[in-house]
Amino acid sequence: MDLLFIFDLVGTFFFAVSGALAVKDREHDVFGAGFTGFITAIGGGTLRDVLLDSYPLVWINDVRYLYAIFGGILTAILFFKAMSKLRKTLFLFDTLGIALFSVLGAEKALSMGVAPEIAAMMGMFSAVMGGVIRDMLTNDTPILMRKEVYASACLAGAILFIVLFNFGVERNVNLIISFLLVVVIRLVAVRYKLSWPQLDWKK
Amino acid sequence: MDLLFIFDLVGTFFFAVSGALAVKDREHDVFGAGFTGFITAIGGGTLRDVLLDSYPLVWINDVRYLYAIFGGILTAILFFKAMSKLRKTLFLFDTLGIALFSVLGAEKALSMGVAPEIAAMMGMFSAVMGGVIRDMLTNDTPILMRKEVYASACLAGAILFIVLFNFGVERNVNLIISFLLVVVIRLVAVRYKLSWPQLDWKK
Amino acid sequence: MDLLFIFDLVGTFFFAVSGALAVKDREHDVFGAGFTGFITAIGGGTLRDVLLDSYPLVWINDVRYLYAIFGGILTAILFFKAMSKLRKTLFLFDTLGIALFSVLGAEKALSMGVAPEIAAMMGMFSAVMGGVIRDMLTNDTPILMRKEVYASACLAGAILFIVLFNFGVERNVNLIISFLLVVVIRLVAVRYKLSWPQLDWKK
Repeated sequence: MDLLFIFDLVGTFFFAVSGALAVKDREHDVFGAGFTGFITAIGGGTLRDVLLDSYPLVWINDVRYLYAIFGGILTAILFFKAMSKLRKTLFLFDTLGIALFSVLGAEKALSMGVAPEIAAMMGMFSAVMGGVIRDMLTNDTPILMRKEVYASACLAGAILFIVLFNFGVERNVNLIISFLLVVVIRLVAVRYKLSWPQLDWKK
Repeated sequence: MDLLFIFDLVGTFFFAVSGALAVKDREHDVFGAGFTGFITAIGGGTLRDVLLDSYPLVWINDVRYLYAIFGGILTAILFFKAMSKLRKTLFLFDTLGIALFSVLGAEKALSMGVAPEIAAMMGMFSAVMGGVIRDMLTNDTPILMRKEVYASACLAGAILFIVLFNFGVERNVNLIISFLLVVVIRLVAVRYKLSWPQLDWKK
Repeated sequence: MDLLFIFDLVGTFFFAVSGALAVKDREHDVFGAGFTGFITAIGGGTLRDVLLDSYPLVWINDVRYLYAIFGGILTAILFFKAMSKLRKTLFLFDTLGIALFSVLGAEKALSMGVAPEIAAMMGMFSAVMGGVIRDMLTNDTPILMRKEVYASACLAGAILFIVLFNFGVERNVNLIISFLLVVVIRLVAVRYKLSWPQLDWKK
């Protein structure tokens, strides 16, 4: 197994954890938590691949993704009390996860021959759509509406990857730089409470 | 027409009824009720087939499914007052419907050559995703969050079907046994108010 | 570029505007508004094409759709105050948009060889599903539940197009007549506050 594949599995694991934990503060049994974790973990990549007509879907083709997801769900259910105290750690893993999926998603779309603008959207979709579907499932305030820099960081990383790719930058260097861009934007934005301006209809 | 096809149409009919009736207690006109019934009836099987790249979709390929759905919607709209008093009967039909779709969904996925673990998920998806999408459409508390054994009964039936299939059990025997497992789990769980433990973050 | 293609781009532009503006009265930053506008604009046609297995998706194949969407989002964000006073104009554009997508969606489905009943559903889906997904994203009261004639006008136009098509009516004449039917139904219904009866469980 190459390193990126392992990272991909680890990212999937943490997406499943975050999805299963999203059910807190609500009436929700452990099976519902697992279901939500599953959808969160596969949502983004599945939507990207369905839009691109890229079959078989990654997690259907390789059952190891399923076990990464089951592992994440089990971890969330068994250790959810401990995990509620690990918010900072979880936030970091979520950030690493979306950064990874942004650049890998953009690369996969590029490899299928779509226009660079489309590939950038696909990178962002890969990273954030799992969370969007999770929020629709749990009737939660969608993550896209919270005052945080989230999807835009993913889009920035995907765009950078595509630009560097077109300049012929070596793949691994490009993956790391673009990955880091997402992480840095997100960390800086949260640390300094940066956010996009709001549309305020009331004024 | 073989018997399973008729069962499939009947299950589709009752899913459409349950979807159209889901709009009670809300401002919702009869057309919205029909729309919701339609999505509920096709949702689970459509999602399964899109994920598996199995085209043409069943209800697009055979217009009789459409008429089963229209019949269910019309029944719900014309007799909704009477039906509100038939909750127990509706609950029974819903249980028969999800049991049927769980085993048929798992069988279809198996026939497409996916791993058994994937086939089990697909069986469950076929049965419950229509209801999940219905609840997202109507902004209702998702069925997965209610304290009931629902999706897990479907998963159990799908898993049993796959296990017996691998042991070479004759198809019709297997379909009936696995179908009954879903029905029995669901009925016993509701009768004795069994439920999965909840994740309680408050403690 | 032929005229219908330009209309299609213009319809996409206005769907993006309506999606981006749907976030008013909520905490939502400009990026979230753009994201919602994007999903609204591509939602209906994408769902239709995924259900029909019609790849590559229109907006993935032709990047001009993406720029129509970006233009719509930018317009909504830059001029949202002015636009809040243009409700009537926006309503008119939305009506033109759904009328156009209803007939073009039905025609595309017919051209793929599905049954006429399916083609009618696909016409309606093309027109309204973007808005349905937008409402699910923003946790809004789904447009299908509001007491307005909306999806049914689209369905009527799609059905008329298919009927006239089968009678051999010339394409452009058919497109215009069916388009106008949707517009007239919607305008008359809103003007005279016509609506479908509601399912009232309370009585």
